[in-house]
Amino acid sequence: MKSVLLIGIGSGHPEQITIQAVKALNRASVFFLLDKGRAKEELVQLRKDICERYIEQPGYRLVQVSDPLREENEDSYEAGVERWHAQRAGLFARLIDEELADGECGAFLVWGEPGLYDSTLRVLERVVDLGGPPFEVEVIPGISSVQALAARHRVPLNRIGEPIRITTGRRLAAADLDNVVVMLDAHCAFGQFLDQTLEIYWGAYLGTEDELLVSGQLHEVHGKIRELREEARQRKGWIMDTYLLRRPLKS
Amino acid sequence: MKSVLLIGIGSGHPEQITIQAVKALNRASVFFLLDKGRAKEELVQLRKDICERYIEQPGYRLVQVSDPLREENEDSYEAGVERWHAQRAGLFARLIDEELADGECGAFLVWGEPGLYDSTLRVLERVVDLGGPPFEVEVIPGISSVQALAARHRVPLNRIGEPIRITTGRRLAAADLDNVVVMLDAHCAFGQFLDQTLEIYWGAYLGTEDELLVSGQLHEVHGKIRELREEARQRKGWIMDTYLLRRPLKS
Ligand SMILES: C[S@@+](CC[C@H](N)C(=O)[O-])C[C@H]1O[C@@H](n2cnc3c(N)ncnc32)[C@H](O)[C@@H]1O
Ligand SMILES: C[S@@+](CC[C@H](N)C(=O)[O-])C[C@H]1O[C@@H](n2cnc3c(N)ncnc32)[C@H](O)[C@@H]1O
Repeated sequence: MKSVLLIGIGSGHPEQITIQAVKALNRASVFFLLDKGRAKEELVQLRKDICERYIEQPGYRLVQVSDPLREENEDSYEAGVERWHAQRAGLFARLIDEELADGECGAFLVWGEPGLYDSTLRVLERVVDLGGPPFEVEVIPGISSVQALAARHRVPLNRIGEPIRITTGRRLAAADLDNVVVMLDAHCAFGQFLDQTLEIYWGAYLGTEDELLVSGQLHEVHGKIRELREEARQRKGWIMDTYLLRRPLKS
Repeated sequence: MKSVLLIGIGSGHPEQITIQAVKALNRASVFFLLDKGRAKEELVQLRKDICERYIEQPGYRLVQVSDPLREENEDSYEAGVERWHAQRAGLFARLIDEELADGECGAFLVWGEPGLYDSTLRVLERVVDLGGPPFEVEVIPGISSVQALAARHRVPLNRIGEPIRITTGRRLAAADLDNVVVMLDAHCAFGQFLDQTLEIYWGAYLGTEDELLVSGQLHEVHGKIRELREEARQRKGWIMDTYLLRRPLKS
C-alpha cells in the first residue's frame, strides 16, 4: 500500500519541529510542495530548508506543484471553500496516483499544527471518497502559531480554569472577548472592539527572523499594530499574524 | 542573572518533543521535578527518562520536591486554586533561591504545552511579584494532548472556517457542542448530552503504551468509554483523558 504522511513542521521556527516529525521526514521518499504563488515563495523555501536540514539520506524527491487558488465566491464563503477543496482533491489524487509507487511513502509538510485551520487532512479524505486505490494516512502533530505566540509573550493561553476560544478574523464576535485567539485575520478585526477594556498579545512571522511582537492595552497599541503590520506586509509581500485578546480580570 | 526555562515536553510520546526543547534541556543544569504523590510517580519517571534520553552532558542535577496538593475549597473553586498557587509560589521561590546559583539555568519540564491548563508560568509570575532577586523566564512550546488526540484520530480540530473551543469538564456547556475539546474531566461530562446527535473522539494516555482511543456517535460509544476509562483508572491508579465533541454538519 502507498502511505501519506501529514507532517506538522511548526510555524516558522526551524527548531520548533519534533523528533517524531524528523523521523517521519526520514521515512518519506517523496515530498509534495504546494506552491501558492510568488509572494509565498518564501514558505516553499522554508519547507525545502527543513528537508535539507533534517533528512539524512540523499535521494528523496521534491514534487512542486502549484496549489489551486481559492477564489472568493460571491454567493457564500462555504461554496468558495467547497470548490477549492474539490480542486485540491483532484490534484492530490493525481499526485498520489502518479508520483507514488506502490509501497512508497509521500509527505505533505504542513504549516504549524495539521489539525488547526489547515485543509490537507480534509482534502485527503475527499481523495479517499473519490474511490481510487487505497492509501494509509498518518498525522504528525506540530507546534501551531498559537503556541508560538503564547511562548514568545510568556502568557498562558487560558485564564485560570476557563475555556479558550480559537477563531478567525471573519468569525470574531463580541461573545468571545473574555479570552480568544484570532487567526486568519486580514482585516484587523480587533478594530471593532476599541471601546472595550482588552489586552492584546499580537505576533507576526512568529519564530522567524522577521518576528514582530506587540502587547498591551488594545486601545493603546492598536495603531502601532496596524502600522507595523502594514509596513511589513508591503515590504515582504505577505504577512501571517495572530493574536490573543483577553478581558482583564477584575480584582 | 539566573534563568528559568519552561520546557514543553509533549503529553506522553517521548518523541513528541521539539528540537528546540531538546536544545533547551541541554542548556539547563538543574531540573525541578514536582512530585504529585504515588499514583503519578510514572509521570515523574517519564520526565527523568526524557532527561536521560536527550541530555548529552552528564552532571546535570535533578531536584525532586513534592508539589503541594490542591485541596478542594468548599467555598469556591477559585479560592482553592488561589491558595494552591500561593503555596506553589513559595516553593518555587525557594527552589530558585536555594538551588540555582547566579548565572545558572534551571528548568521545569511541563507536560504538553506550557500555555494550556498549566500553572507553572502563572506561579513563576507570582514568584516575581514576591520581589526576590530577578530571574529570566523563557517558554518553549510543546505538543499538547489536544494535538496528540487530533493526530491519532486523524481528525481536524476545527470544522471548516469555524471556531474551536477548548474547555474543562467542569465548564463544558451546551453552547459549546458544535465543536469543543474537553480536558480535565474526571466525571465524563459528556454524559449530560446523550440526547444530542454528537460525534466523540476520545483518547486516554495518548502517546504512551497504554493509549486508548474510541470514536463514534456519542450515544453509541459512551458506555464503552466509561468502561475502558474505569478499568484503566483502577489498573493504573490514575488516568488522563481528553476528547473532542462535534455536532455533525447537516448535509
Ligand atoms: C491557514 S492558517 C494555518 C495555521 C497553522 N496550521 C498553525 O497551526 O499555525 C494560517 C494562519 O495561521 C497564523 N500563522 C501561521 N504562522 C504564523 C506565524 N509564523 N506568525 C503568526 N501567525 C501565523 C496566521 O493567523 C495565519 O493567517
Ligand atoms: C493539567 S492539564 C495539562 C494539559 C497539558 N499542558 C497539555 O498541553 O496537554 C491535564 C489534562 O490534559 C489532558 N491530557 C494530558 N496528557 C494527556 C494524555 N497523554 N492523554 C490524554 N489526555 C491528556 C487531560 O485532559 C488532563 O486532564
